[in-house]
Amino acid sequence: MRRAGLLLALSGRAWRSVRMASSGMARRDPLANKVALVTASTDGIGFAIARRLAQDGAHVVVSSRKQQNVDRAVATLQGEGLSVTGTVCHVGKAEDRERLVVTILDINVKATALMTKAVVPEMEKRGGGSVVIVASIGAYFPVPGLGPYNVSKTALLGLTKNLARELDQRNIRVNCLAPGLIKTSFSQVLWKDKEREESIKEIMQIKRIGKPDECAGIVSFLCSEDASYITGETVVVGGGTPSRL
Amino acid sequence: MRRAGLLLALSGRAWRSVRMASSGMARRDPLANKVALVTASTDGIGFAIARRLAQDGAHVVVSSRKQQNVDRAVATLQGEGLSVTGTVCHVGKAEDRERLVVTILDINVKATALMTKAVVPEMEKRGGGSVVIVASIGAYFPVPGLGPYNVSKTALLGLTKNLARELDQRNIRVNCLAPGLIKTSFSQVLWKDKEREESIKEIMQIKRIGKPDECAGIVSFLCSEDASYITGETVVVGGGTPSRL
Amino acid sequence: MRRAGLLLALSGRAWRSVRMASSGMARRDPLANKVALVTASTDGIGFAIARRLAQDGAHVVVSSRKQQNVDRAVATLQGEGLSVTGTVCHVGKAEDRERLVVTILDINVKATALMTKAVVPEMEKRGGGSVVIVASIGAYFPVPGLGPYNVSKTALLGLTKNLARELDQRNIRVNCLAPGLIKTSFSQVLWKDKEREESIKEIMQIKRIGKPDECAGIVSFLCSEDASYITGETVVVGGGTPSRL
Amino acid sequence: MRRAGLLLALSGRAWRSVRMASSGMARRDPLANKVALVTASTDGIGFAIARRLAQDGAHVVVSSRKQQNVDRAVATLQGEGLSVTGTVCHVGKAEDRERLVVTILDINVKATALMTKAVVPEMEKRGGGSVVIVASIGAYFPVPGLGPYNVSKTALLGLTKNLARELDQRNIRVNCLAPGLIKTSFSQVLWKDKEREESIKEIMQIKRIGKPDECAGIVSFLCSEDASYITGETVVVGGGTPSRL
Repeated sequence: MRRAGLLLALSGRAWRSVRMASSGMARRDPLANKVALVTASTDGIGFAIARRLAQDGAHVVVSSRKQQNVDRAVATLQGEGLSVTGTVCHVGKAEDRERLVVTILDINVKATALMTKAVVPEMEKRGGGSVVIVASIGAYFPVPGLGPYNVSKTALLGLTKNLARELDQRNIRVNCLAPGLIKTSFSQVLWKDKEREESIKEIMQIKRIGKPDECAGIVSFLCSEDASYITGETVVVGGGTPSRL
Repeated sequence: MRRAGLLLALSGRAWRSVRMASSGMARRDPLANKVALVTASTDGIGFAIARRLAQDGAHVVVSSRKQQNVDRAVATLQGEGLSVTGTVCHVGKAEDRERLVVTILDINVKATALMTKAVVPEMEKRGGGSVVIVASIGAYFPVPGLGPYNVSKTALLGLTKNLARELDQRNIRVNCLAPGLIKTSFSQVLWKDKEREESIKEIMQIKRIGKPDECAGIVSFLCSEDASYITGETVVVGGGTPSRL
Repeated sequence: MRRAGLLLALSGRAWRSVRMASSGMARRDPLANKVALVTASTDGIGFAIARRLAQDGAHVVVSSRKQQNVDRAVATLQGEGLSVTGTVCHVGKAEDRERLVVTILDINVKATALMTKAVVPEMEKRGGGSVVIVASIGAYFPVPGLGPYNVSKTALLGLTKNLARELDQRNIRVNCLAPGLIKTSFSQVLWKDKEREESIKEIMQIKRIGKPDECAGIVSFLCSEDASYITGETVVVGGGTPSRL
Repeated sequence: MRRAGLLLALSGRAWRSVRMASSGMARRDPLANKVALVTASTDGIGFAIARRLAQDGAHVVVSSRKQQNVDRAVATLQGEGLSVTGTVCHVGKAEDRERLVVTILDINVKATALMTKAVVPEMEKRGGGSVVIVASIGAYFPVPGLGPYNVSKTALLGLTKNLARELDQRNIRVNCLAPGLIKTSFSQVLWKDKEREESIKEIMQIKRIGKPDECAGIVSFLCSEDASYITGETVVVGGGTPSRL
């Protein structure tokens, strides 16, 4: 239940030399020497992911469409002693966007595909990389009233598999995170009033609503060497809400 | 492995009065008094479906983008004594299409969604209806070299679920057919030469390649009263190729 | 939500000669010249399936563990002019069962596997056949309080795929039906009181509870020549309840 | 492709006090103060998991059916400075096993269910815990010649969901690992000769066969606080082999 197909790209400077997952060393700073680009990361789940990747040793590039949001997020994370810089990121040029009917499908699916392709050459230069696409539990089940959003998220499950296949030969893994109901400003309509929250929890068959932080660890894991044989997969972080076998 | 999100819309003139599935009667002409609009139906799977629906009692409207293809298909089916008429169907007006970058995602997903919504009012007037969307086994697994096609088909799985949910209250069911490898002109690159065919069959773990006719029965079934409690589902017609649990 | 892994086995006397699905003829009596063995078929979904297969032209063998139930079902169906006989069917010999701790897993999974294997030689003699295994929506989602039942139904999804693969070379197709919430005596605890019914419908996200008849058409379809390219698949009959993509 | 439903149970001594995942601290020794019981862990994937959990701070109890295998594994891991002890673990008493027809379904499914239930009281005393069940890619697709094995693994996907649901209120999470083709003695028939390996890689659509170590990180992750909102899920470690959406 978040705005856009958030895309995370991580590439290792010295991919092969970091290949020491079983030594214990790599786990201390599993993302050392890596650069992470996290889109839509000034708030909510994206922000939690950006923080976590930086804590795990990556240099993180925070990105969003608005300069002031980027500045605020960078300042916060730098204040925590993390290695973070920021960039404003547009989906295409402004004039193009105006002509285009920018639908949810375009933003969530096409932009994710285009951005992945944009970072591939950089990853190849560094010997490999890892992409984590953010879908939603809505990819599996129709959250009422969010039709186009749900469908775009379903498409991301397929995009993950197809990109994984295509980029396999270049040492780039592509995986996907499907958060369930997470407490963010984006999803607040679902939990703001107590009664609504209880009803949603019953329908989603969960004990409690998740926190953005609870989505961050799996992203760091999927980007690390520990996930070296995981590609094309989607992990649901949904607190037990029905997903798929 | 077919061109576009083929959409089939069936609406019953006298929905409730046909509700006699267990009497045996309805099964003789399971689609009597129904009108079926079959897009992309002048060739291959679409044509096989159109023929079958007409054989099962529906009046079928054959549709495609080219007048001469429509004329040929209508003539053939009328020559078999079937109740068929034709119409040329554009995805939007020509001038719009030129401005728009008509990608596979637009054609397969947006056009399918728009066309379904276009037929809903007519179905409501008749008391209900049935939509069958045609996806592909590529929706589940990345057929190499067909990335955007595969992703658009994955999106259709989600579209099926979401439309089913939305249209539930209006007595409209929405289901999906996912053909595996079917012998059509569209898929001939995969089976034209014998050696290629054998290798594809091994990879797809099938004994033989399917025929367009073998996709038609399930569509007729899903449109009939016999499927009254089936909605939001996708049926794979793939000869045993790996699909999903 | 039904007792046991109901197994349906259909074998065609003259398989190849019936291969005329597109002629319209086969659809009049799609199961003519076939013999259907339906286990657990004296009540509920099994009974609805047995009746439907007989209406569609098959000779049906009704089967259950209790003689009087079999007699009653046979009498009812013969009274409707259908070609039906009965047999009492035990899972193993009585003395074996007493020694064995007959768990749900044993009945639902092992018995289904064993019975399928028992009918294979007969099907082979006739040139082929079709098996439809009955699982449940519980195979996909944990219906609370029914753990072992749910797990056994999940196993049936895998059994379907594995038997389909194994029996492919012998012209035997194996598919599966997963009913959602159907109004039977087995499931009455879920719908007997009105308030409970409304709550269940909300959780299952369905407009109404299904009827046994609504599970019968798909079984007849899967057994017919129309499903000649469908094997290893599960069809959910759940009225739109969340299932899987 | 491994022998039995390997079960991993982890319980935190001071569950709530360890709740500091975002502080960076917890990640240094993510499993500190935890006790891990790893069954079937003297070889292959189980052994790799046991080692990794110990490296990540847990006290590990290695377990298997044969005393000498347990002794050897414990000695090896203690020699690496890890906190490890061993225990011989039988599925039931020997005399029981002789009477019982111990099928694969019994070992893989029933034993996993029983063992989980056996460790629940201990986990509850400690305030919670985490169970990771090991299934296989065979759970999703029928590996030829391994029918009962595959079906038992499919059942484990359902068991994971059902146990997750049941144990939710006791602060116990239950997840599942589905390894693809991993280089172990168990799977050597598939890769021992070079030609066979190449053919298997093509069918499984993978670039290379995985290593036991590559299955270990995800188990440690799923047991850690970082996975606090992940329950009922299966993660495939298959190098991009077709799995499910």
